[in-house]
Formats: sequence, structure tokens, C-alpha cells
Amino acid sequence: MNMAAVSRISVLLRHLTKQTRAFHQQKVCSSALLQVKQGLGVSCLRPVATASALKPESLRSEWEKPSFDMEKMTALLDHDNHEMRKKFREYLSNDPDIIPQYNIPLEEEREKALKILQRICDLQFISVLDFKNNPLRIFAAHELVAIIDPATATKMTVQFNLFGGTVLKLGTERHLNKLLAGIDTLDDIGCFGLTELGYGNNAVEMETTAVYDKSTQEFVINTPTPLAQKYWITNGAIHAKHCVVFAQLIVDGQNHGIHGVLVRIRDDDLKTMPNVLIEDMGHKMGLNGVDNAKLSFNNVRVPRENLLNKYSDVAEDGTFTTSIKGNRARFLTVADQLLSGRICIASMGQGAAKAGLTIALRYAATRLTVGASGKSDTPILKYQLQQRALIPFLANTYAMNFALDYVKDRWAFQKPDGSEHQEVVTMCCAIKALAGWYGEEMASVGRERCGGQGYLSCNRFGTFLGAAHAALTAEGDNSVLMQKVAKEVLEMFMTNPPNVTEVTTENLNNLDYLHFLMQKREITLFMTLGMKMMEAGKEGRFDAWMYRCSDLVQGAARAYGERLISEQFQAAIDRADASLKPILTQLRHLYLINTIEKDLGWFVTSETMTVPTGRQVNEVAAELCRQIAPQSLALSDAFAVPDALLSAPIAMDWVKYNERDNQGEVV
Amino acid sequence: MNMAAVSRISVLLRHLTKQTRAFHQQKVCSSALLQVKQGLGVSCLRPVATASALKPESLRSEWEKPSFDMEKMTALLDHDNHEMRKKFREYLSNDPDIIPQYNIPLEEEREKALKILQRICDLQFISVLDFKNNPLRIFAAHELVAIIDPATATKMTVQFNLFGGTVLKLGTERHLNKLLAGIDTLDDIGCFGLTELGYGNNAVEMETTAVYDKSTQEFVINTPTPLAQKYWITNGAIHAKHCVVFAQLIVDGQNHGIHGVLVRIRDDDLKTMPNVLIEDMGHKMGLNGVDNAKLSFNNVRVPRENLLNKYSDVAEDGTFTTSIKGNRARFLTVADQLLSGRICIASMGQGAAKAGLTIALRYAATRLTVGASGKSDTPILKYQLQQRALIPFLANTYAMNFALDYVKDRWAFQKPDGSEHQEVVTMCCAIKALAGWYGEEMASVGRERCGGQGYLSCNRFGTFLGAAHAALTAEGDNSVLMQKVAKEVLEMFMTNPPNVTEVTTENLNNLDYLHFLMQKREITLFMTLGMKMMEAGKEGRFDAWMYRCSDLVQGAARAYGERLISEQFQAAIDRADASLKPILTQLRHLYLINTIEKDLGWFVTSETMTVPTGRQVNEVAAELCRQIAPQSLALSDAFAVPDALLSAPIAMDWVKYNERDNQGEVV
Repeated sequence: MNMAAVSRISVLLRHLTKQTRAFHQQKVCSSALLQVKQGLGVSCLRPVATASALKPESLRSEWEKPSFDMEKMTALLDHDNHEMRKKFREYLSNDPDIIPQYNIPLEEEREKALKILQRICDLQFISVLDFKNNPLRIFAAHELVAIIDPATATKMTVQFNLFGGTVLKLGTERHLNKLLAGIDTLDDIGCFGLTELGYGNNAVEMETTAVYDKSTQEFVINTPTPLAQKYWITNGAIHAKHCVVFAQLIVDGQNHGIHGVLVRIRDDDLKTMPNVLIEDMGHKMGLNGVDNAKLSFNNVRVPRENLLNKYSDVAEDGTFTTSIKGNRARFLTVADQLLSGRICIASMGQGAAKAGLTIALRYAATRLTVGASGKSDTPILKYQLQQRALIPFLANTYAMNFALDYVKDRWAFQKPDGSEHQEVVTMCCAIKALAGWYGEEMASVGRERCGGQGYLSCNRFGTFLGAAHAALTAEGDNSVLMQKVAKEVLEMFMTNPPNVTEVTTENLNNLDYLHFLMQKREITLFMTLGMKMMEAGKEGRFDAWMYRCSDLVQGAARAYGERLISEQFQAAIDRADASLKPILTQLRHLYLINTIEKDLGWFVTSETMTVPTGRQVNEVAAELCRQIAPQSLALSDAFAVPDALLSAPIAMDWVKYNERDNQGEVV
Repeated sequence: MNMAAVSRISVLLRHLTKQTRAFHQQKVCSSALLQVKQGLGVSCLRPVATASALKPESLRSEWEKPSFDMEKMTALLDHDNHEMRKKFREYLSNDPDIIPQYNIPLEEEREKALKILQRICDLQFISVLDFKNNPLRIFAAHELVAIIDPATATKMTVQFNLFGGTVLKLGTERHLNKLLAGIDTLDDIGCFGLTELGYGNNAVEMETTAVYDKSTQEFVINTPTPLAQKYWITNGAIHAKHCVVFAQLIVDGQNHGIHGVLVRIRDDDLKTMPNVLIEDMGHKMGLNGVDNAKLSFNNVRVPRENLLNKYSDVAEDGTFTTSIKGNRARFLTVADQLLSGRICIASMGQGAAKAGLTIALRYAATRLTVGASGKSDTPILKYQLQQRALIPFLANTYAMNFALDYVKDRWAFQKPDGSEHQEVVTMCCAIKALAGWYGEEMASVGRERCGGQGYLSCNRFGTFLGAAHAALTAEGDNSVLMQKVAKEVLEMFMTNPPNVTEVTTENLNNLDYLHFLMQKREITLFMTLGMKMMEAGKEGRFDAWMYRCSDLVQGAARAYGERLISEQFQAAIDRADASLKPILTQLRHLYLINTIEKDLGWFVTSETMTVPTGRQVNEVAAELCRQIAPQSLALSDAFAVPDALLSAPIAMDWVKYNERDNQGEVV
């Protein structure tokens, strides 16, 4: 037995790094021998007791095999650009430069993010022309890059969507010829100069001016006050040569509203241009690989041709022509990339949620805690506490995946007559907000359920939580977007209220009934909101909306979004392979019951659901978690996040990781 | 008017830093003049429109004056050690070394945390002897230091509570004489070697051994396996000379359970001692000023006298004597500092919550957004969205303040016969968990409601969110502590069930009724839990608890804690000055109604509350937020956090802050 103990111990030693091998070898053997000498049965046995815990991989293998066709599930989740996604996972897994580093200076962190983005671009996983040729490819790239590094994805979304997409949409030949190639290669990095310090929540009131000077046929760009500084400008602090500056376009003293003007902020040697003031915004609670800047312009003169003139133009003599009536309409047109931007952000959030969930579940399956015997012999994932915390996020992530796919399609393949635009805008806002909130909750709860390990940067919850927080308020504060959603949906309801087929049997295991509850809640809340607005009358409407009905507004918008998600989850199940339908149906069931449980007070007090039925909701939710848990590892494996991209030690053999002096790094 | 505009602009220029003054002067004036020349009325007017927004202080002053005696409110909140708190706020406000820095290397961050702690110690704001002379002073220091820097507070809590407190409690003359002075001066920094990689969730099963070697009268300390590495050891990576190593005490092959042994890990020149392996755990999602280490021991020999021998001892000949029967009981005794540690963590959380809330409310009062006119003329705090998000946290923070004060007193002034100990343990666990969850929610929502500004490190939500997350799982995973709470309370209920005087009138504005609901929920949940445990029987109990009743266990423990908080809030109101009672009563009302709204589904489906009453809950909560909002700035001012300790630019004149090249730093 003693020899056995020693040999078992020596197994532990195999993977020790050079650095500490000698140390441990001497230690463990000698201590074992010491114990042997003194016949310390108790502690001599301990290595045996923990031996199984030393192979997380083998612990993982004890969980149920997939009850579904893994490849088909991954294909369903991937939805589009399968070949590109396959290549991405393969190529990047073999790229040492993507391995995260944590204890590095801000400067290095930013260069690292750029380096990863350069790799993505060199491998041509994204192109601004995808907007024309294969728009879904843009979103696929966002989801995948966010798994590697959300900061890189943020720099990418500004370069390709906000900057590149705006040049593509608002520019004409003279701009496209100059810039498109360089956007794809990163020879021409740009930024999106919309937000100002004082007007992040009211951009149409921005103060920056672009005044046309007939005498020189130039636009003169100015930042009249500190509140007018361009703020949060991604890529601005270090890497950008160009900026689409949004400004009040003024010709002969007349303000034609906000237009986008291309301004060179750095020359080809990245030297800041004269009269441009660039200030680094420094350290943030996350996404420190992103170089955000404050920008000020002091009589910066750019040629008339730099106006992005697809829809509005200023002739040499100062004649202003436009195909869009009204300053507000023109603002919405020039800021239109914020719309696809919201899909980009939701896609990034999905990437992070998939990775975070995979990490949390794998760790939970390999982290032992006290069992009935008092010994540490039970994986925490076996316990209901862990299941009730994590499994619902699996359901959320699947649900959001299918809803987001639908919104991508609707955005990418709209009728050319623009008749679907308003509906698409509403969907994008709702999905961006809900994906953001789900993502923040997932990162936060996932971190907590991983305990101390979740707190180490190398296990990535800090990265994902920081990124999730940015998503909550970037490109539209979630709650403000939800106000917009409520406003739009309310108008749709007023013009043509949806008709819903009632499901009368209150059976919590009947998904038609649960979906009906989603519809019923949406209709009820919007009808109530509509009533209150009518009571308030035209004059009172603003006050009622902003001072009295905020919870109702937010609740109604959420009800719209969650009904949409349930609908698209079902649509995905309908088109799914037969082997996937059972588990997907369980996940949709859990998504619905959790959504209802979170809002149970409303469902019962509004008498949408009876008290006796409401009383059963928790047990149905708990039972579903119990049923899905054994498949939870398989369901997260279906996200197909390669180990190299997960990177987190706790998602792999974390004991082996801790056998060496890792300094908290994975490199 | 033109001259007026120019002069108004020049007002903006006053505060510009040397660095950028010349730039802005030239810019703004010339642009203004340009506009004047071209008679651009529109943009010429803008500086006027924003002028008011440029003085956040004046915007703040537009809010209601306090309806209460500010000094008395602060005194009530401070509860104890008023003189010490006053001095702390005064001295530290004038200390340049406490100003946070963000873009600095890990090494510097740790030295900075130590430097601040050294200052606290030099000023004698904390002493390990406070545990004997003035225990509440320990907790006061934790709350105040956490406002300056939670990492410093974390290093402090390990030095003074976990390490110092353990030496004081388990040590005898021979240890106290050597160490007490050095603990207070930081000449003897120590750490608390309890947690092991494999046993953070089951410490009693730890593997580290302290084997007595009669021949040399030494203990031989060993780390037999990688899972036995001491993990997360604060102060271990850089600053500690000493470690209380917890280990299985083995004499002549017999294991006497876990005991604490003083081990020197570094010499006086901070050189690592032979046979001790110290590995830096590196970067974390927060608290990077804390130097956490992995420790391994390889036949480290320490004299027999290093055993902390107040309760157990080993004689020269190896005779083991103890005043505590049983290994488990001995473990609970040696780990007893975890109890006061939980009060320390809750106190730190309160400090962070008070600072974060003050920052969020001040910014909300000075951040303008679009009003009815479409112009940016309305502070976001005026809107219900912001009020419903932030005001409830005011109620939570006041509520937790008074409950925590009660728990501090109960812990500090227990009957010497130990008859209250179990109840105190239960309270500490519940309050630590609830304070942690409230704190995390506060930091997260506060960040979101501050938008982009909340994301900048200098505005501190990242710091507080990182610290809050640590609090969720440090010194006991919150959810696991709640399992313990449920177990203890259930036993109390079984022996003597509380009797409650029914309040039958369902009036949501009657606080006796709302408090009755708290009591009713607690009793109902524990009775249900007790029933289920009886059904399960002795054999089935573990499975029922861990696999079937998790939500019920967590809900019951929360109900206990929230009832306790409501009770102590009322007790504080009863002893408060008359001028404070009205607003405090509104805050307690809001605390209760929010607690009920969060769990409304349960209250109604359990028929604890009728459907018609449940339907009114949201409006009562909304109305209370509306009523309290005008006092919210005053209520956060009563936390008496000096500007220098708040440090966040958005809590002060954030426009002025952005008139200079700040690089995201406040220094």
C-alpha cells in the first residue's frame, strides 16, 4: 500500500513544470516516506482520496453522452457561414498570439488587441464588403472574435461596422476608392465621431459644427465647448487615421442638421494632424484593449469632397441639396450603422455567453465538494443549487441564439421598399437590450458559482463581465432603447392589434399555453400603456411616459422581446433535425417557465394566471433543470468553442494548471 | 449678443489646465468669432444652452434642502466611534497618497495598497487589541478604509482580523509578546493559511499536515498534494512574514484534527524561508492591490512552541491535551475569526455601497438629458427610470446599516456563557450574504445608470463591482452560508417556534402589516422546509436538502435575514431623533415594499397576500421613490463620505474634469 501510495503520488508529478518539479518531487516523496515511516495511515491515504479529483477530464467523462447529434446541433446554432466558422475555429486555435495575457500594461493590451484584429483581417474573416455580399458573415465574425477577446471585437465593430459601414453607406465613389481596401487591411483604421460629452443621450443636439467656407471650398470643423468634445471614440487614442466626424452642417449661416464628414486625425506615420486634439481616456472597468479618445477640433479644414454625400451634398457655390427631408430624418440616416451595430453587440454578447457558460459548466462538473459522507467526493454540478443557477442560462443562450439569427435575417434581407425597416429597428433594439442583460447576468452568476476560481482573470469571467457591462449602455442605453421599443410597438398595436388564439387549459407543461402567456402579457401591458397614454392626452403624454409609467414601459418592451424570442425558438425547433427536437423543446420549456417565474407576481396579480397554477411554477422549473443537467455539458459543447479559445484553466485540467507556478497567466 | 457669447465662452476657459488652455482659447474664441462673422445664430447660441450644464455643483444645489438634521442622521448611521470616524474623514481627506491611480502595474497597485494601510496604522485607526478594548472600532475602520480602497481594506482584514485576531484568540503569552506590537505597526505582516486548492468548500478535510517530531520537538509541515496547496492567501505573495498554517495535527500517527501553527514564510528582509514555496496568483477581476499567493510547505520544521496553544497543546513528549472535545469542534474554534471576518466584509460592503450610491445620485442630479422641449435640459434623476433604479438602494443601504450595527453589537457583547453564540453565527452569515448581494446589485445597477461615465475606472464602479464580487464568495460562499442559516434557523423553529401577532388589514401603507408579511413569509417557508425534512426522514434528509429543496432553503434563509433587517430598521427609527423619523420611516417603507415586490409571486401564490393587494404593490413602490427622490442627495450626503474619499469626477464638477487632458486619472 505504501508503494502504491508513492507510485500514485509520482503520477501527480509527471506534469510538473521544470521550475518546480525538483521541489515537489523531493517534498511529496519525502513527506510520503515520512508518513510511511511513521505509519500515518490517515494522511497517507489522502492522495488516494484526491486522486480522482486530479483528473477533471475523467470526471467530465462521467457525465451523460449527448442525447442528440452534436454536429447537427452546432450547425443549427451556427445558422450561417458554416465553412467560415469552421475555418475560424481551426485557424485561431493554432495561433499562439490569441492566448490572453492579464498582467500587462494598458499600452500592450491595446497592441495585443490590434494584433489579434490584424490576424483576423489577414485571414480575411471579415470585410466591409460583406455588408453587400454576405452581411451575416459580419455578425458571425463578431460572435467568434468576442470569444477570443471582446476588446478586439470592439475595435473591429467600430472599424468595420460604424466606420467602414458608414463610409460604405454614406460615401460615394470618391470616398470608396480611397478607403475600402484600407479598411479591410487595417491600413486605414477609422473611428466614428458621433458621441459628445454632453450629448451621449441626445446626439441630435450635438454642438460640433462643420461650417462651409465658400472662399476655399472647405468645411471648417470646430468643437465650440467642452461638452462638445467627441467622447469615447474607439480606435481614436492610438490607432485611427480617419474619423467620420458628425457635426451640425452649416452653410451661409443655415443649419442643415447633422452630417458625416471625413476628417484625417493622423497622418500615415500616425502623427496627430494639426488643430486636432486627441486625449486618451485611459483606464476602464473592462475592455482595456480598446483605445478610447476624447477629440477636439480647432478650425480643422477639410476639402468639400470629404462630406459623405450619398444623400446630401454641398455644391462649390454652397448650394445644399438633399434627398432626405428634415434634420431629424437626416440624422437617423447618417447614424444608421448604429442599427447593425446593435446586432454586432448582441452577437458579441452571445459569443461571450457561450464561452462563459461552457467554462462554468465544465468547472462545476469537475469541482468536488462535500457529499453525504462528509468527504469531498461530489461534483458541485450534481447539486440543485448549482443547477438552478446555471441551467437556466443554457436555455437563455439557446433562446437568444435563435432569436438573434432571426433578427439578423430580417435586417439583412429586408424588402427594398423599406416597409419593414421600422419593425426591424424595433427588433434590433429589443434583442440588443435583452442579450445585454442576459449576458451581464450570466457573467455575474457564472462568476459567483465558480467561487474564487471565477475571480481569477485567467478564468475569464472578469473579461466577460467587463464586456457585458459595456454592452448594456454602448450604442444605446438598454433601458432607453426599451423606451423606444415600447413606443414603436405601442403604435403598431394601436394601428393593428395582434390577434391571439387563446389557450385555456392552464397546464405548465403545455408549451402552447406558456407561449400564450407571453402573448397575453405583451398585449395586456401594451393595452394598459395605450390606455394610460390616452388618458394623459397629447399634452400629458410626455410626463406620463417619463414620470409615471416607466416600469410599465420597460415591462411592455421586455414582454415584446421575450414573446419574440419564444416564437423564434419554436421556429428553430420546427426546422431542426428530429434528433434535436426533444432537448430543444425542454430548453424552450425552461426558457418560458423561467421567464414566467421571474415575472410571476405580475402574471398572478394581473389574473393572467390563477393562483393554483402559479404555485406550481417553481417546481416545474426545478424539475426541468434536473432533467437537463445531465445533458448540460453536451449542450455547451455544442457551442463548439475550442479549448484554445476558451483558454480558462478551470474549463480544462485545472489541477494540472495549479501544479506549476503560473503567476495567474495561461502563457 | 456676440460679445456676450464670447464672454460666456471665456468663462468656460478659466479652469482649463495650462496644458490645453492655449489650444482651447485659440479654438473656441476663433470659432466663436468665425460664427459671429458669419452670423451663425444657431451655433452661436449653443454655449449659452450648455452654460448651466457646465456647473454641476449649481445643478445639485437646485435639489431640495434636507428635511432632517444632517448631523444627527450621520451620527445615527455611524452608530459608534464617532470621534474616530470624524478624525478619519478629516485626516485622510488631506492625504494625497490615498488618491487612486488606475493605469499602474500590479506591483505598484500592491505597494499603493500597503502604503495606504501603513498610513491607517500610523494614524492608529485600527489595532488588533481593539478586539479586546473596542471591537466595534475594527468594523468602523473596515467600512471607512473600503471607501478609499477595497484592496487596502482586504489586506487590513487579513492582517488584523484573520491573522491578528487568530493569534490573539488562539495564542498564548509566548506568541502575543512576540507579535502583537508588530501586527499593529505592520512590522509583522501575516496571513491566514486555511483555504486549500481542493478544499475551499470543505476545509475540515484539508490535507496539509503538521506532524510532531518528538526527537527534535518540532512540527513538520507538509503539503502532500497539489490540491493541498494553500490557495488565495492574502498578503502571501509579497508582504507577509508570518502565516498561521492550518493543518491536520498528527502526533504518533494519530490525527487530532485541524490546528493553527505559526510558520515563518519570510525573514525580516522578506526573503522566502527555505522549504517554503510561494507562488503569486497574479491578476484578478478586482482587488488587484491584494497580493494573493499559493503556498506549499516541504518538511518545514517549526518549534513545538509555534502551535497556537490556547485550547490544545502538545507536550515535549508528544502528549496531546485539549479543552475541546472532537475534531470538528476544534476546527470551528480555530477558524472562529471567519465569524468576525464576515462582519468585516459586510462593513466593507457598506462603505462601498455608500460611496457608489453617493456617486450615482450626484451624477444623476447633474447629468442633463432630453426634456419635453427636445433640448438637453433635464437632469436624469428627475426621470422615473433613474429613480426606480437608484432610490431603492438608498433604502437598502440604510436598512443594512442598522441591521449590521445590531449584529456588530450582538457579536461584540455576547453573554460570556456562550448561550448566544449560535444565534450570532446565524445572524453574521445571513447579514454577510445579504450585504454582499445588495452591494453587487448596487454596484452593477449604479454603473449601468451612470452610462459610459460609470464605465471609466476613475468613477469607481469597476473598483466597487470587483470588490463586491469578491465579497460574494470570500470567507464563505453566500449561498452556502445561507444553507447554514436555514439549517440553524430551522432548528430554532423546531425547538421554539416564534409567535407572531397577526395584522389582518391588508394595507400596503401600514408598515406593521408589511413587517407582518416578512414574519409570515419566514414562518411559512421554514414550516414548509421542516415538513419536507420530516417527510424525507433521517436517511433522506441530505438528498432532500441538496437535491430537491434548494430554492426553498435559500428563500427561507433570505426571509429570515430580511425580517431581521426590517426589525432592526424599526429599532433604529425608535431610537432616532424626532426630525429623522419621517424620512427614515419612508425609507423603511420602501425597503419593505421592494422586498415584497421582488418576491411578489411567492406572496400571492402562497396566499400570504391577496391578488387585489398584490396588484397595488408596484404603485406603492413607485410613489415612495417619487416622494424620496428630492431628498435622495441629502440622504446620501448623510453618509458623510468626503469628496476626497469619493474621488470620482462624476460626483463633482465633471465638466471641468473633462476640460483637461486627464488620461482617465484623477491625479
